[in-house]
Amino acid sequence: MKNAFYAQSGGVTAVINASACGVIETARKHKGKIGKVYAGRNGIIGALTEDLIDTSKESAKAIAALRHTPSGAFGSCRYKLKGIEEHRAQYERLIEVFKAHNIGYFFYNGGGDSADTCLKVSQLSESMGYPIVAVHVPKTVDNDLPITDNCPGFGSVAKYIAVSTLEATFDVASMAKTSTKVFVLEVMGRHAGWIAAAGGMAATKDMDLPILILFPEIAFDQKKFLSRVEAMVKKHGYCTVVVSEGVKGADGKFLSDQGLRDAFGHAQLGGVAPVIASIVKENLGLKYHWGVADYLQRAARHIASKSDVAQAYATGKAAVELALKGRNSVMPAIKRVSDKPYKWTIEVAELKNVANKEKFMPRDFITKDGFGITEKCRKYLAPLIQGEDYPPYKNGLPQYVRLKNVGVKKKLKQFKI
Amino acid sequence: MKNAFYAQSGGVTAVINASACGVIETARKHKGKIGKVYAGRNGIIGALTEDLIDTSKESAKAIAALRHTPSGAFGSCRYKLKGIEEHRAQYERLIEVFKAHNIGYFFYNGGGDSADTCLKVSQLSESMGYPIVAVHVPKTVDNDLPITDNCPGFGSVAKYIAVSTLEATFDVASMAKTSTKVFVLEVMGRHAGWIAAAGGMAATKDMDLPILILFPEIAFDQKKFLSRVEAMVKKHGYCTVVVSEGVKGADGKFLSDQGLRDAFGHAQLGGVAPVIASIVKENLGLKYHWGVADYLQRAARHIASKSDVAQAYATGKAAVELALKGRNSVMPAIKRVSDKPYKWTIEVAELKNVANKEKFMPRDFITKDGFGITEKCRKYLAPLIQGEDYPPYKNGLPQYVRLKNVGVKKKLKQFKI
Repeated sequence: MKNAFYAQSGGVTAVINASACGVIETARKHKGKIGKVYAGRNGIIGALTEDLIDTSKESAKAIAALRHTPSGAFGSCRYKLKGIEEHRAQYERLIEVFKAHNIGYFFYNGGGDSADTCLKVSQLSESMGYPIVAVHVPKTVDNDLPITDNCPGFGSVAKYIAVSTLEATFDVASMAKTSTKVFVLEVMGRHAGWIAAAGGMAATKDMDLPILILFPEIAFDQKKFLSRVEAMVKKHGYCTVVVSEGVKGADGKFLSDQGLRDAFGHAQLGGVAPVIASIVKENLGLKYHWGVADYLQRAARHIASKSDVAQAYATGKAAVELALKGRNSVMPAIKRVSDKPYKWTIEVAELKNVANKEKFMPRDFITKDGFGITEKCRKYLAPLIQGEDYPPYKNGLPQYVRLKNVGVKKKLKQFKI
Repeated sequence: MKNAFYAQSGGVTAVINASACGVIETARKHKGKIGKVYAGRNGIIGALTEDLIDTSKESAKAIAALRHTPSGAFGSCRYKLKGIEEHRAQYERLIEVFKAHNIGYFFYNGGGDSADTCLKVSQLSESMGYPIVAVHVPKTVDNDLPITDNCPGFGSVAKYIAVSTLEATFDVASMAKTSTKVFVLEVMGRHAGWIAAAGGMAATKDMDLPILILFPEIAFDQKKFLSRVEAMVKKHGYCTVVVSEGVKGADGKFLSDQGLRDAFGHAQLGGVAPVIASIVKENLGLKYHWGVADYLQRAARHIASKSDVAQAYATGKAAVELALKGRNSVMPAIKRVSDKPYKWTIEVAELKNVANKEKFMPRDFITKDGFGITEKCRKYLAPLIQGEDYPPYKNGLPQYVRLKNVGVKKKLKQFKI
């Protein structure tokens, strides 16, 4: 009977731990077929350095609490394994560690890069005579994985951004007469505008709100932008601009890299919101405020989407069930069965079709003028932000769990990464 | 039988509409004693320009929904009436409008400035032979009003900041091995550090988290700050810095006015978070992220504090009840009866003791080193963030109400403000 290895990869989300919960609880239900679940401390680095966490030391209650705890309970990392040709030693080290700890299942919870790593581990382990069943668990707030209808992690960010945009827009609306007229909210999404699109969900047929979206897929046109802001402020008295961190100018450069400098001439990093706000101020003379949601958006488990939590858990569970059926180099993907009522099921995607592919917003999800979302986009997004899944509270605070994260005794020599 | 006038003043909050709900519902319960409730469109400006809203045109359901709707339903304004000597005409105009619409009660919902206006209206109306019963309803996210134990509006921001700090700190903790080690969160509070203090509530006895707070009450000491950040990162691997927008250097200047310039040399306004983040990067070379909560924090009705909502409603209700008892130039204030269990009651404060006084954080609420909160502060803050009071949702979004805001026919000549 083989043990399993589970690791979290890349930026964490409000529900990646719900996937961990799905993996561990399902493995525990199949105790006759699967041994212990070892987690990598700080992701794949934990495997390379043989820094494994024995999840069997955690109580059932603690594991259940992962379902409502944001962030990565075992630590994650931004560390991409390179190609096998360049860094064969790293892959061989992984297999060596897995062999030393009798690991036969590899569950990797991440985005496109980790899907690729997962595939390579499976292939190399086969060729090294120690075959490992490798299953990828999808996770990314960016919603940019192919095949799966949506990615666990995205729905909750989308809900947070939709709710926050609605609330901030109400705020501006009430202050606009004498104060702020334009509110700029910066959201994540370096390449794809899915998260920014969610800001558009704050406006509905019953709730006409002046919201303008800047997508990374659409080159920033300052003149057009200013004229739209001006028109909205003229009509409504105010407007909200939801801007993706990845918005680029016609020159292909990020707007956030416009060269902000402090008093000493040092370059300032990041923040497209202040750049947009000052464009508004310089050209239209309108009073503005700006916010940058940053980690708040992807950690906001307190306002997680119920469908997102359910899907994060379900993909974790499905990964173990697939592995036990001997399915290798695959990823459980979400298939949308119907929009209204929202129904979905889990299908199986081959990793070779998932790895290293990015899914952008289809052009017909963005309105012709480039500043809004279409009905088609609304139809896609609506079910993903559906339902609330509140964590338990004590003394006014969510009761998030911190695991003991007991290490497994090392058996091998050190390995320098 | 006299009508009532109600207006919202200054920055709005997640619960100022709950106070409006308390005022209107209570007035409706006393139909034999009080006529219509007219609201000022965009605050006191609505009274000056005779732009009154007839709240009797709103259904009971719509008024009830104000309890769970953030922002100012009738519009607010940043417009301070000056001294009577300088602008007697403005005060006379107010009385003229009130007289024209048979208004005998003045309910003003705001902070210190509006308490002062409320007092002056009461005094002048008396001397002008048209006595108006003026009652102030406390509201400010800054929590800086005297006498009242706390201000409606603060508890919900405090809860939002405590929850967001907890969530973002969990996020950084899981990424710190290879990525962000310092997260900087900018919060409101230009003069008083109450909101920043709430960030400290994310850490508890059971949940030791490295959180460092920068208060406007404590002059920024870069050397001391950097050494604390370094020590926290050494011990925990990461830390979160909660910085008040009002933090000043030893020279008394706002840190946010450090002179950020764009590529064209234009001054950039605001954002102390990027300033702190670049100090960390320049001096310690640590990877950072920063967020600016801005309006998101004070509009976040989705995570409002239950005690805050109850108190906002109760002060609105009490204001009407006091007025009907003939109490003039007063404000319902919150009196804390016990900490655990939290019990509070409404007492009556004389406006002359409230107007134009700011309440800062007591020094013994801040730890000796100036970077944290003391047990005394925790004891004070804990009940204020207690309990959740979720709004109803539909299709994944909170069901916030927008009123019809039907105008009252004007009777007077135009008045230029």
